[in-house]
Amino acid sequence: MEPNLFIYNTLNRRKEKFEPISPPFVGMYVCGPTVYGDAHLGHARPAIVFDMVYRYLLHLGYKVRYVRNITDVGHLEGDADEGEDKIGKKAKLDNIEPMEVVQFYTNQYHAAMDKLNVLRPSIEPHASGHIIEQIEMIRKILDAGFAYEKNGSVYFDIEKYNSQHKYGVLSGRNIDELLAYTRELEGQEEKKNNFDFSLWKKADPEHLMHWPSPWSEGYPGWHLECSTMGTKYLGDQFDIHGGGLDLQFPHHECEIAQSVAANKKMPVKYWLHNNMITLNGQKMGKSLGNAISLDDFFKGNHKLLEQAYSPIAIRFFMLQAHYRSPLDFSNEALQAAEKGLEKLFTSLNTLNKLTASNKSTSDIPGLRDKCYEAMNDDFNSPILIAHLFEGVRIINSINDIKETITAADLSLLKQLMQEFVFDILGLKEEESESSNELVDALMETIINIRQKARENKDWDTSDLIRDNLSKIDIKIRDTKDGAVWDIE
Amino acid sequence: MEPNLFIYNTLNRRKEKFEPISPPFVGMYVCGPTVYGDAHLGHARPAIVFDMVYRYLLHLGYKVRYVRNITDVGHLEGDADEGEDKIGKKAKLDNIEPMEVVQFYTNQYHAAMDKLNVLRPSIEPHASGHIIEQIEMIRKILDAGFAYEKNGSVYFDIEKYNSQHKYGVLSGRNIDELLAYTRELEGQEEKKNNFDFSLWKKADPEHLMHWPSPWSEGYPGWHLECSTMGTKYLGDQFDIHGGGLDLQFPHHECEIAQSVAANKKMPVKYWLHNNMITLNGQKMGKSLGNAISLDDFFKGNHKLLEQAYSPIAIRFFMLQAHYRSPLDFSNEALQAAEKGLEKLFTSLNTLNKLTASNKSTSDIPGLRDKCYEAMNDDFNSPILIAHLFEGVRIINSINDIKETITAADLSLLKQLMQEFVFDILGLKEEESESSNELVDALMETIINIRQKARENKDWDTSDLIRDNLSKIDIKIRDTKDGAVWDIE
Repeated sequence: MEPNLFIYNTLNRRKEKFEPISPPFVGMYVCGPTVYGDAHLGHARPAIVFDMVYRYLLHLGYKVRYVRNITDVGHLEGDADEGEDKIGKKAKLDNIEPMEVVQFYTNQYHAAMDKLNVLRPSIEPHASGHIIEQIEMIRKILDAGFAYEKNGSVYFDIEKYNSQHKYGVLSGRNIDELLAYTRELEGQEEKKNNFDFSLWKKADPEHLMHWPSPWSEGYPGWHLECSTMGTKYLGDQFDIHGGGLDLQFPHHECEIAQSVAANKKMPVKYWLHNNMITLNGQKMGKSLGNAISLDDFFKGNHKLLEQAYSPIAIRFFMLQAHYRSPLDFSNEALQAAEKGLEKLFTSLNTLNKLTASNKSTSDIPGLRDKCYEAMNDDFNSPILIAHLFEGVRIINSINDIKETITAADLSLLKQLMQEFVFDILGLKEEESESSNELVDALMETIINIRQKARENKDWDTSDLIRDNLSKIDIKIRDTKDGAVWDIE
Repeated sequence: MEPNLFIYNTLNRRKEKFEPISPPFVGMYVCGPTVYGDAHLGHARPAIVFDMVYRYLLHLGYKVRYVRNITDVGHLEGDADEGEDKIGKKAKLDNIEPMEVVQFYTNQYHAAMDKLNVLRPSIEPHASGHIIEQIEMIRKILDAGFAYEKNGSVYFDIEKYNSQHKYGVLSGRNIDELLAYTRELEGQEEKKNNFDFSLWKKADPEHLMHWPSPWSEGYPGWHLECSTMGTKYLGDQFDIHGGGLDLQFPHHECEIAQSVAANKKMPVKYWLHNNMITLNGQKMGKSLGNAISLDDFFKGNHKLLEQAYSPIAIRFFMLQAHYRSPLDFSNEALQAAEKGLEKLFTSLNTLNKLTASNKSTSDIPGLRDKCYEAMNDDFNSPILIAHLFEGVRIINSINDIKETITAADLSLLKQLMQEFVFDILGLKEEESESSNELVDALMETIINIRQKARENKDWDTSDLIRDNLSKIDIKIRDTKDGAVWDIE
């Protein structure tokens, strides 16, 4: 099948046919977390969205190298190179090594992503592990004349860059606007222009993470790592760059400027941005008291949550919205998603029990085409899910003997549900965590029946129980405290 | 409690009282895997052994910073700087980026270690992420006069080092022996002496991973990373360095030489080495056809395995031997460990049901002291386990009303079993992966009984079943295909 995938390219503000630079290979880079705090919903959305993109590209037969970074240095509190390093600050607060902070929250992030059934990327590079590469890239930008050094720090010269290339191609902003936006900041007097950004910062004496460089003992600017690691692992020009809409400006804009300055090429063919999440209609944030960690969601541990929500219910909920739409989390919406998911899985169990007839009353090949059309239309997962629920309706109608299906269509229906539900949307049935308790409760029931049968000298029933249980290696023993059971 | 821990220090070939350099802080470095192949038993032993050490130090109240590295560059096929980079070779074979190899096997290693209940270290640094630091250390060694550059590569000068410091303090080898041991190797003519080892290697044109350095575009020598990352995160002198006995020479010997040369200090106070594993009495190796991956053990997927072995059974088996003893894996021995583990957990369940009396017939405080004595005697886990089985005997005797225990002793016994079994040995009861299947089988049994009761018009039994199941929200429905059940 010739893929006919269209992707909305933020760079050109329109849907474009996806034509990778060197098919069947696809290079995809997505901005990962800055690991200084609990993994939260804001981490989950890009991870799930681009996991779906990754899964769909794999499904279409592309050989995808998916790079998602870990930011462990250089991300300062303020966007304009001011404030402390986020990880360094947390390390000082907790009185530990910055890399202990990084390890702890990276482990936590991975555990949460695993629960959300997000596939691990092909490469997960750390910013702190690519200091040499970042220094090399700064050298290239300096050599090209688009950066300047001041007191051991190196800044990107946006005005100079803009005179030869256009700064703002991704976000549509221009320098005049930028000047209006930019606040006067303390400690920025080294910059020629307020909106220049740092490539290398000389470390203050209290700064914990620093490395030697030709300019100073210091650390890289935040925007630099993604340009460096993206091009290192995917080449000077690669296919897809993803991230949250909040990263479009300045982060991704600066990435483009850095790469063009250093390599004289636009680095990325398709820029994808997922929209933001709100909670009960409000922006999320620590200061707003509604920053709920993913673990809190999974456990129902927050005053705003009426119950625990399973990772797969959260995943399903996110995919019910198109990735470019904003998404509001609320208890009602999540509970509705939970019910929908249950309905979907119930019908998949029914699907396995359906029997074929001579005739199909529904158009299964047509349904499959619609599913592909949805995904090919800029990964339109809500439309895909609507079609899958048309599948659910068909399954239930066949089961209720209101409709019929041929053997060939039944096989096709099973395949399409399998591929779209599990492989592409990445949903899965969750193991009941309480099945051990259930086993205990069922054995108690059986022991009660056995007890009553023995009182009534109903040896047939007690023999039946013994024989059935022995088949599954369970033995009941009578003790002074009553009957107990063991798995042999 | 003043800890009274004695550790066998390979450096001095005797047990020494453990006195950390800056109590309550303890710095511990353990050599981690080279991530180019499946995680196997040889990875599991050091991980489990030093996990037990880590857990015991934490239990004693130390604040431990535990660093375990990932080797992702510089580990060549041959010990004497010859052959291809192990990861680069695998990348060429699979036609992928070296860092994709690293990511894949690191993920696999983590998954296996999680199953073995091995705690994540505080920091898990990658060799490739510390090239600058390694270059800095080479500079220091060159400045001190203990290394020389030749054609873009830098070698450690063992003869020069040995003239001022003793080379061989850890392994007890001396240079004359070394000369006898060392083969003549092709491509080693740059070295002054055959047994000199590389700190930096100029990359051949086909070498995939390389970085700029003052000497050449190249890559660091294998021994260097541990010296660099150990001292970066734990200081020039730290408390514990662990690893497998196979790393004692040359790897750890070279680490000492590098650190002494660069920092003029012995880097490590206590060197610990775990002994090796054999399989049915044979050394393990890919060429011997008995290199069984951990996943194969967990699934029973190998012709040498009679069954699957659970991760915790493997862990328990490893801890039944002292870490400095060799350990032979066989089906018989693993099955015996499995039975022992089951007996231990059965008794822990019994323990929770015991009732107290006026008098204790066993010396519980004495038992606790013996457990600590065992662990304080160089982490003697087999002796500890023998004492825990004395606990099992006491529990079962009390349960059989052959012995009695006071409330205070019962509480103490519970605490000591909890602490030593779970916290220190890191054992845990495994969730039965088959509990969902078990639920299905038990429900089938119940439905059979119900069917028979209804045939016999035994409404009491069928009501009993209905009432018992409704308590746990299970409903049985009769359909044309027989009875089916649902959890409501």
